[in-house]
Amino acid sequence: MINIARRLLIGKPLHNKEMMHERLPKWKALSIFSSDALSSVAYGPEQALLVLVAAQGIVAYGYLSPIIVAVSILLLIVALSYVQVSRANPGGGGAYAVAKKNIGELPALVAAGAVFADYVLTAAVSVAAGTAAIVSAFPSLAGREVGIDLGILFFILMLVNLRGMRESSNMFVYPTYAFLLGMIALIVTGIYQAVTQDGALLPAASLEKQPLNMAMLYIVLRAFANGCSSMTGVEAIADSVPLFRKPEAKNAIITTYWMAGILVVMLSGVTFMMMHFHVIPILEVTALSQLAEHVFGRSFIYYYIQVTTMIVLYLAANTAYNGLPVLLSIVARDGYLPRYLSSRGERLTFSNGIIVITVSAAALIVVFGGHLDHLIALYAIGVFISFTIAQCSMVVHWKREKGSGWLIRAVVNGIGAVATGLVVIIITLTKFSHGAWAVLVFIPVMVFIFKKIRSHYDDMAEQLHLPLEENLQYDDNQVVRNYVIVPISSPTRVVYESLKFAKTLSKDIIVLHIAKDEESAAKVQMKWEQWNPGMDLEIIQSPYRLTIQPLLDYVEALKKRKNPQDYITVVIPEFETRKWWHRLLHNQTGWLLHAMLVIKENVSVTTIPYHLNK
Amino acid sequence: MINIARRLLIGKPLHNKEMMHERLPKWKALSIFSSDALSSVAYGPEQALLVLVAAQGIVAYGYLSPIIVAVSILLLIVALSYVQVSRANPGGGGAYAVAKKNIGELPALVAAGAVFADYVLTAAVSVAAGTAAIVSAFPSLAGREVGIDLGILFFILMLVNLRGMRESSNMFVYPTYAFLLGMIALIVTGIYQAVTQDGALLPAASLEKQPLNMAMLYIVLRAFANGCSSMTGVEAIADSVPLFRKPEAKNAIITTYWMAGILVVMLSGVTFMMMHFHVIPILEVTALSQLAEHVFGRSFIYYYIQVTTMIVLYLAANTAYNGLPVLLSIVARDGYLPRYLSSRGERLTFSNGIIVITVSAAALIVVFGGHLDHLIALYAIGVFISFTIAQCSMVVHWKREKGSGWLIRAVVNGIGAVATGLVVIIITLTKFSHGAWAVLVFIPVMVFIFKKIRSHYDDMAEQLHLPLEENLQYDDNQVVRNYVIVPISSPTRVVYESLKFAKTLSKDIIVLHIAKDEESAAKVQMKWEQWNPGMDLEIIQSPYRLTIQPLLDYVEALKKRKNPQDYITVVIPEFETRKWWHRLLHNQTGWLLHAMLVIKENVSVTTIPYHLNK
Repeated sequence: MINIARRLLIGKPLHNKEMMHERLPKWKALSIFSSDALSSVAYGPEQALLVLVAAQGIVAYGYLSPIIVAVSILLLIVALSYVQVSRANPGGGGAYAVAKKNIGELPALVAAGAVFADYVLTAAVSVAAGTAAIVSAFPSLAGREVGIDLGILFFILMLVNLRGMRESSNMFVYPTYAFLLGMIALIVTGIYQAVTQDGALLPAASLEKQPLNMAMLYIVLRAFANGCSSMTGVEAIADSVPLFRKPEAKNAIITTYWMAGILVVMLSGVTFMMMHFHVIPILEVTALSQLAEHVFGRSFIYYYIQVTTMIVLYLAANTAYNGLPVLLSIVARDGYLPRYLSSRGERLTFSNGIIVITVSAAALIVVFGGHLDHLIALYAIGVFISFTIAQCSMVVHWKREKGSGWLIRAVVNGIGAVATGLVVIIITLTKFSHGAWAVLVFIPVMVFIFKKIRSHYDDMAEQLHLPLEENLQYDDNQVVRNYVIVPISSPTRVVYESLKFAKTLSKDIIVLHIAKDEESAAKVQMKWEQWNPGMDLEIIQSPYRLTIQPLLDYVEALKKRKNPQDYITVVIPEFETRKWWHRLLHNQTGWLLHAMLVIKENVSVTTIPYHLNK
Repeated sequence: MINIARRLLIGKPLHNKEMMHERLPKWKALSIFSSDALSSVAYGPEQALLVLVAAQGIVAYGYLSPIIVAVSILLLIVALSYVQVSRANPGGGGAYAVAKKNIGELPALVAAGAVFADYVLTAAVSVAAGTAAIVSAFPSLAGREVGIDLGILFFILMLVNLRGMRESSNMFVYPTYAFLLGMIALIVTGIYQAVTQDGALLPAASLEKQPLNMAMLYIVLRAFANGCSSMTGVEAIADSVPLFRKPEAKNAIITTYWMAGILVVMLSGVTFMMMHFHVIPILEVTALSQLAEHVFGRSFIYYYIQVTTMIVLYLAANTAYNGLPVLLSIVARDGYLPRYLSSRGERLTFSNGIIVITVSAAALIVVFGGHLDHLIALYAIGVFISFTIAQCSMVVHWKREKGSGWLIRAVVNGIGAVATGLVVIIITLTKFSHGAWAVLVFIPVMVFIFKKIRSHYDDMAEQLHLPLEENLQYDDNQVVRNYVIVPISSPTRVVYESLKFAKTLSKDIIVLHIAKDEESAAKVQMKWEQWNPGMDLEIIQSPYRLTIQPLLDYVEALKKRKNPQDYITVVIPEFETRKWWHRLLHNQTGWLLHAMLVIKENVSVTTIPYHLNK
């Protein structure tokens, strides 16, 4: 039953050889890994504008274009940098991998923690944003946001991703292109209208600037920090190089160029239109919606842009699903996370990583009750920390390799590192009390956890190491005894079978009865003598009616008596019932006993099944 | 840690010999077992009056006194009957036990189901009623009723009862007497005022009766059915005879007389006052509160009566906690419920039964969201079904025993059986659509479950039976092999230890490696040969990266190959980590494998612990 459900939901297991078929062509990879970055055009410029226009009644519209130009330049630098990351690390892992290779463990772990925070926040925030859009369309759903969020997470994102790449790309590839189509129509038509209409391309009101004093500088920097939220998701491709078709690195690089190009074009186009049409931020109507209405009126195209924007915001969550499990698998392979995060499930996906991101995002949504709007700008910190670390690493990389033109490359990355490092500082300063502090607490905590896990695995490897130089061959002449304890409640056919089995294990068999009172002890003794199986029965009185503790005490005493090399084995019969509910009718003593005994050194527990036929 | 918390909450384990000390003296038993019955004076007469006065605008006040007289007579008959039940069944179990002994399995199970429903409803309804009273005193708590209900159930009723009789009686014994004191003060003062005041003892308006046509008869019967809610809890003493001090039966009988006497006096007194002061039911002010205000004004005594009434309503839930676990233990001993309900926990209480009633009542409260008012009259059905069955059984009992005066006793019980049987019919007819149907569905379902459980235990006993007439001695000359399978992932110190242990079990050891790809297979093979422990390594390729299924398949194949009498044992190492969270870092494959293997016939699983020191 469970297996059938599993097959239906997740699909049949995939053979190792099918791995290649699961790889992504560029055009699919672009839509899958870029939905996060591309969708940010829907809120990035607006977030910048909000600060310039709304704050303290100042209208500083004129700073919008330099800010967006700065964001675009930064975007190109970061994209160039990640192109080099992909080239240097075809194994994926982005900032983490490149830092680990070039500048050491600590910055690598900081990058891993930052990207982890970024991805989980992306998944949670995007799902919540998509749901908010649905709820504003269907107000009768209000109050069920958290339920809808969790439904989307567990029943759509998790299941589709567990099924694997190919299905996930098929399902998620078209909405991104549909969104792009709408945006291109909007930008082309908008610019055509702007050029063919009378009047200035940029009205005077849109160029107004306050003088740049300290207060104004702070506002401009905040606007810039907000604008940088357009850049989250740029690293997704570099994290996921191994998911591309061969040649992976080259395909990933071309896809990165495409993504950055499209994003810069969209950012510029939208910003130009925002200035030309002099869009003023209005509560509850997005800037993009205002632009679309300006250009197309309330026509079909207007609604098309609205709907595709909403869908692509949902899909941004999927970017996280594609990026994080791969990153986790790489970090886990290095021993900083539980090992099972590094192995592929039966559908060749990193199933455990997919479950981790689902559960983490769900926890965030439940804790914040689905109100995640104020987290939107937050996760830019994690992203820019990882950008900075990645570019520092690349500088070291070029310096080491010293290939042709290494100096220019190093300088490009160096400028990038300084720029993104500045952005980290700007965001931290302008957003500290708005939640940036939480990310800055989370990252060191994660680094601590990574190190603890690694040190456990190191300890374990050391303890499990089989030193071949020591003589660890077996000495078959050594006399090792195995004391087999068979606890019984009264002589039954199960006891008969248990003892028959025990006799194959050892000659030292101890049959034990824990008696709750003397009356029952006498009864069991009598039955035993009637049967007379040729073994002694030891009876232990337990006036407190406990069954497990006296047995543990007996084992403890026997351990002291026996030779150190000897073993103790406790045989516990387990009833296999024909119907599931029959299990409920049996005392769970066996299971508990098992759990308690296994804690003891040199005591093994053998479960023998006894099948009830009716 | 868990143990310390357990000691603090529940107390130290009690020795079998301490059993007697846990028994109850009569004066404590009276308050513990009667809080349910005695508290019903707070709502019984009022419930009857409500029907007579409110229904269809008819005022039929004059029928109140005959109805309460009828209820009182019925109460005395039932009490007399239960005195005889206690005498005939000093082992407790009330209606169930007496029916089982005298008239057969089916009626006994019906009675058990009915009493089960009654007790769970009592616990749930009483807790909800108590909370409702608290919330009306502290309106700021409104909306948290369910939370408070569950808190009371789990943290007060369950814990106190798990600690055992003595503590439970010490905590619950005084409020009942405080309530009695208040009621006596009220009745004595009220009657004194009535006698010394001018005017008729019963005003004409209070004697008004409509002619008894069919419609009126229906109303009177409904009023009577409601009045019968005063009688729930009368059976509690007979269910719990073994909890009394010796001589149990005699002490239980005396306590029953006291309870019935007190209840009849209170019922009569309250009814007389309701008629004398011509109390009219008012929403949100109970009749008892009106009476107290009439007699004492808003004085200290008025508030005293209000508060003690509220507390005793809470305590009625505790009656269920004292009655049900004993009953469940008796039913379980007969094999109709899971056996572990029949054994006493470390504090000598029937801990599992206490947990059953807590969880059932909690489930009811959660399902109904704490709004249980309309269930109040409901559980009278269960009670009266069990009354009827108990008395029928007693008729058969007397007929069989034929002691002195058996005929009179049989006639008394016969009249009782007819009377309570009529009440069942009356309640069913007048309350059917108000929820009585649910009880009538629940009881057959319970009977079905009881029978299913019993038949499983019967089947099991048959299968476990050790027929001494067959020759079940062991033949030590028979050659029985035990194939010991040791699955390994790579040669480590754990493998070394596992194999050393396996060599004590058998000479037929199979070392197995499940390889996820050919590369890793070659690596393991190479390491194995380097070590060269003198055994072969079998490698199974698993291109779907599954670990468990290939092993299960191997075991299945081996089962077909081996001789039928041979065994297969799979050795699974279990890591004992030094810190709890280290467990999370290890794959749970071992545990899963254990679960999957144990389902197979003739395959035993041995867990050997490997302790990590850091």
